[in-house]
Amino acid sequence: MTYVRNAWYVASWSNELGTDAPAGVTILGEPIVLYRDQDTNVVALENRCVHRLAPLSHGRCEGSRLRCMYHGLLFDASGALVEIPGQDMIPARAGVKAYPVIERHSWVWVWMGDPAQADPALVPPAVGFDDPDYILGCGKLDYAAEARLICDNLLDFSHLTYVHANSFGAGDQWAQQRPRVTALDRGVRVERWMEAELSVRTQADQLYDRWQAYDFLVPGILLMTGGNFPLGTAQRLNFAPPDLTEALSGVTYTSQAVTPSGPGKSRYFFSWGPHVRHGDAAFRDTLMKIAAMAFDEDKIMIEAQQVIIDADPSKKPMPIQSDKGVTIYNRLIERLAREESQPAPQ
Amino acid sequence: MTYVRNAWYVASWSNELGTDAPAGVTILGEPIVLYRDQDTNVVALENRCVHRLAPLSHGRCEGSRLRCMYHGLLFDASGALVEIPGQDMIPARAGVKAYPVIERHSWVWVWMGDPAQADPALVPPAVGFDDPDYILGCGKLDYAAEARLICDNLLDFSHLTYVHANSFGAGDQWAQQRPRVTALDRGVRVERWMEAELSVRTQADQLYDRWQAYDFLVPGILLMTGGNFPLGTAQRLNFAPPDLTEALSGVTYTSQAVTPSGPGKSRYFFSWGPHVRHGDAAFRDTLMKIAAMAFDEDKIMIEAQQVIIDADPSKKPMPIQSDKGVTIYNRLIERLAREESQPAPQ
Amino acid sequence: MTYVRNAWYVASWSNELGTDAPAGVTILGEPIVLYRDQDTNVVALENRCVHRLAPLSHGRCEGSRLRCMYHGLLFDASGALVEIPGQDMIPARAGVKAYPVIERHSWVWVWMGDPAQADPALVPPAVGFDDPDYILGCGKLDYAAEARLICDNLLDFSHLTYVHANSFGAGDQWAQQRPRVTALDRGVRVERWMEAELSVRTQADQLYDRWQAYDFLVPGILLMTGGNFPLGTAQRLNFAPPDLTEALSGVTYTSQAVTPSGPGKSRYFFSWGPHVRHGDAAFRDTLMKIAAMAFDEDKIMIEAQQVIIDADPSKKPMPIQSDKGVTIYNRLIERLAREESQPAPQ
Repeated sequence: MTYVRNAWYVASWSNELGTDAPAGVTILGEPIVLYRDQDTNVVALENRCVHRLAPLSHGRCEGSRLRCMYHGLLFDASGALVEIPGQDMIPARAGVKAYPVIERHSWVWVWMGDPAQADPALVPPAVGFDDPDYILGCGKLDYAAEARLICDNLLDFSHLTYVHANSFGAGDQWAQQRPRVTALDRGVRVERWMEAELSVRTQADQLYDRWQAYDFLVPGILLMTGGNFPLGTAQRLNFAPPDLTEALSGVTYTSQAVTPSGPGKSRYFFSWGPHVRHGDAAFRDTLMKIAAMAFDEDKIMIEAQQVIIDADPSKKPMPIQSDKGVTIYNRLIERLAREESQPAPQ
Repeated sequence: MTYVRNAWYVASWSNELGTDAPAGVTILGEPIVLYRDQDTNVVALENRCVHRLAPLSHGRCEGSRLRCMYHGLLFDASGALVEIPGQDMIPARAGVKAYPVIERHSWVWVWMGDPAQADPALVPPAVGFDDPDYILGCGKLDYAAEARLICDNLLDFSHLTYVHANSFGAGDQWAQQRPRVTALDRGVRVERWMEAELSVRTQADQLYDRWQAYDFLVPGILLMTGGNFPLGTAQRLNFAPPDLTEALSGVTYTSQAVTPSGPGKSRYFFSWGPHVRHGDAAFRDTLMKIAAMAFDEDKIMIEAQQVIIDADPSKKPMPIQSDKGVTIYNRLIERLAREESQPAPQ
Repeated sequence: MTYVRNAWYVASWSNELGTDAPAGVTILGEPIVLYRDQDTNVVALENRCVHRLAPLSHGRCEGSRLRCMYHGLLFDASGALVEIPGQDMIPARAGVKAYPVIERHSWVWVWMGDPAQADPALVPPAVGFDDPDYILGCGKLDYAAEARLICDNLLDFSHLTYVHANSFGAGDQWAQQRPRVTALDRGVRVERWMEAELSVRTQADQLYDRWQAYDFLVPGILLMTGGNFPLGTAQRLNFAPPDLTEALSGVTYTSQAVTPSGPGKSRYFFSWGPHVRHGDAAFRDTLMKIAAMAFDEDKIMIEAQQVIIDADPSKKPMPIQSDKGVTIYNRLIERLAREESQPAPQ
């Protein structure tokens, strides 16, 4: 399937990557080793020693350098080969590829495309654990399915009614009502008011108008928030976005990232938690239990979908109206991928 | 390997398919969903939602209809798409393929070929649990092997002497004596008298002449019975078939079905049990324990055979005299498959 | 990857092969059955019955013959088909391939190439359990990696410093000092003195000059010994090989064999133990525990290396100075394989 290369992909949660050992990840089929230099900045190198192609992720951090623990070759943070044990001469320009990497919003982001175009401003504005406004938990799941299928899932919440009736207690309105879908430069914005939703997120059986909105950004980043407002708010605002600071309750935030590991394999990262004025650590734990249940429901369906697709790859999907976000986003991906593969303009 | 499409394949035991939930099966590599309509009639549809190719077997039965539980599309028993949540317009002719299906003899049979040629008269005359003459148990096994290899096994009982010395207590005569093998329109008939067989099926150490006969029918259905007769009966009848109602003991019945799931994978269904005058439920349970042991012996051998075949697919079998049934049946399959692929005569 | 066919491959430990049952092995992707004839001589046949391609390793030994336990065909030790149950006529020349096989040095060796060139003198001079000078233990490991990668590993002990710091307690000198590497007719000789090595093999904390030397022979056989000498011996001998009978301690022997099972799969056999004057059965057991730990370290690294290679097979290794033995041996393998594929000279 088609993926964009000129984009920041989530490679890891920040808190997964210690200072003592490197970690191997695979993005778009490329083996990558992550480690922290002596200033704890993250380094991302090709995870393949130049000598005998052993994984550097089985190596040893030495200050800002990484030593292959097969035959001891040492690489610096630029990927340059700087030492061969027992050998004086180091071949010029020997080394492994270094990937542009940024640690931001509690994630490690790796740029998979042309390094000259690696613009830090393109890192999506996720909310990390350092944000004082939110109390977040986090998790990840490995999928035996294409990342594109998980993106499709996240771009069309009509599936909540069917896949997540148990976990989220989602009702018919998710499938029946269309959200407002707007194209962004590098993504899609999906917003909706749900009038008189019985909020299952809070202890009360009180009815609210609920606002929910997310941006889904290249290369597969969902950033979502929402909140509960007095009945009639949606009508009063003529269904325009509310001021979230005026929400009565239920303001939460979730960042989610879908990373294609390789053909038919993906890694899915997610956080979720309440605004500090709308919940505490215990409520965050409740939300994370709901998330664990819901994301298992998705995984079962999407991996089963992948099996059916693999049984006859010639079969094509049939778009329906709820696919508006899916269609806009997938066309964007196809266009960006096409542009990447063309020569740059003079 | 070559398989016939214009045939009724066993997709399930009847008693495996409830009214509450659909079931997914795979035949000839095609994903199929089975469910019961509001009159408990079985429906067989393509197990692939038109929308995003999710499996309908993860769906929900709603009367005679089946709802995809990914985004809620609803299909009727003809496979027609009848509802898209939140969308008024349904594309004309949208839907999934419906397979001809018949429930008979305790099995669900699916026609994999041209629906116009789906003739119920071609369902093999198996004995089901509803037959008052027999007390049957049933089982199934999944094989990591081609269905054709299991059919070969069932078409040549000379293997009993070697594979089933333990389970069936089979002696040399299975390998030494050739049965009478007769070609049928859609199969092979295999009959034999075994004089003075020490019947291990009954409690007595008494010697009998044993009759055993089966039809092996397209697309892989074995229907077998037999019985014990006084010594000398075979000679007296000049080895012609006996009247089974005159058997002294040991009259049992077994229906077996081999269904190709996909390349290198099969599902094997089997029943076995005594005639009501020759045994009871306890004896049926004894037979099923023997069957479980014997069919494991087959599975070990056939899956090992598949590994050897896969190691060098250029190697071809060398027929021997005991292969007469195998050869007739396999030529029939090749001929039927060839005829299917040719244009119908004017 | 390229492998030599005209060579003796280790198929089994002698003590793994009893007289009661055949054993199946796979070498260079070819299924082979091993069994002992009535004189306990080992027979190696193609593990594929001519009839229906079932594995003869599921068969039964009958004197010097082997019966297929699917339909009872019987083969003699030359591979000739000698009996078909219930059939008088045996097709002339029907049978399975017989491989030249030798049992020597506690191993079963199978010749995979042209039988006419199977020269017993080419069996590498390993030390077996029958050698009165050594007290040996043995083991084996199955690898999900090409045999060539294991050979590379064994041809360059600079990896000891990095992979085996824990198990062998190997220090920097393995990576810093180059051994003497000499090409042999069918292999490579690797010898080294390590001055003032703290021998971790013995109970004492005494310093020695340690000698260690091995031959690595086609098709992947390592034969190694060594011993501890008084400090200064290396200098005194001007780094020439010592007389091992004069060693103070630490004389051990190890035979190791790498057998390619098939693409991406290998089997690794190894023995190790002390000279009778330098250790006892308890010390052998200590060495085997160290070996188990060390060979797991290798397996983890080499299987991870295989994964990285498979992720992009276009990437090539970059030789370094410590690869001298690797390079000489691999060129030898390529040359021998090339010569095999050419027509024999007149």
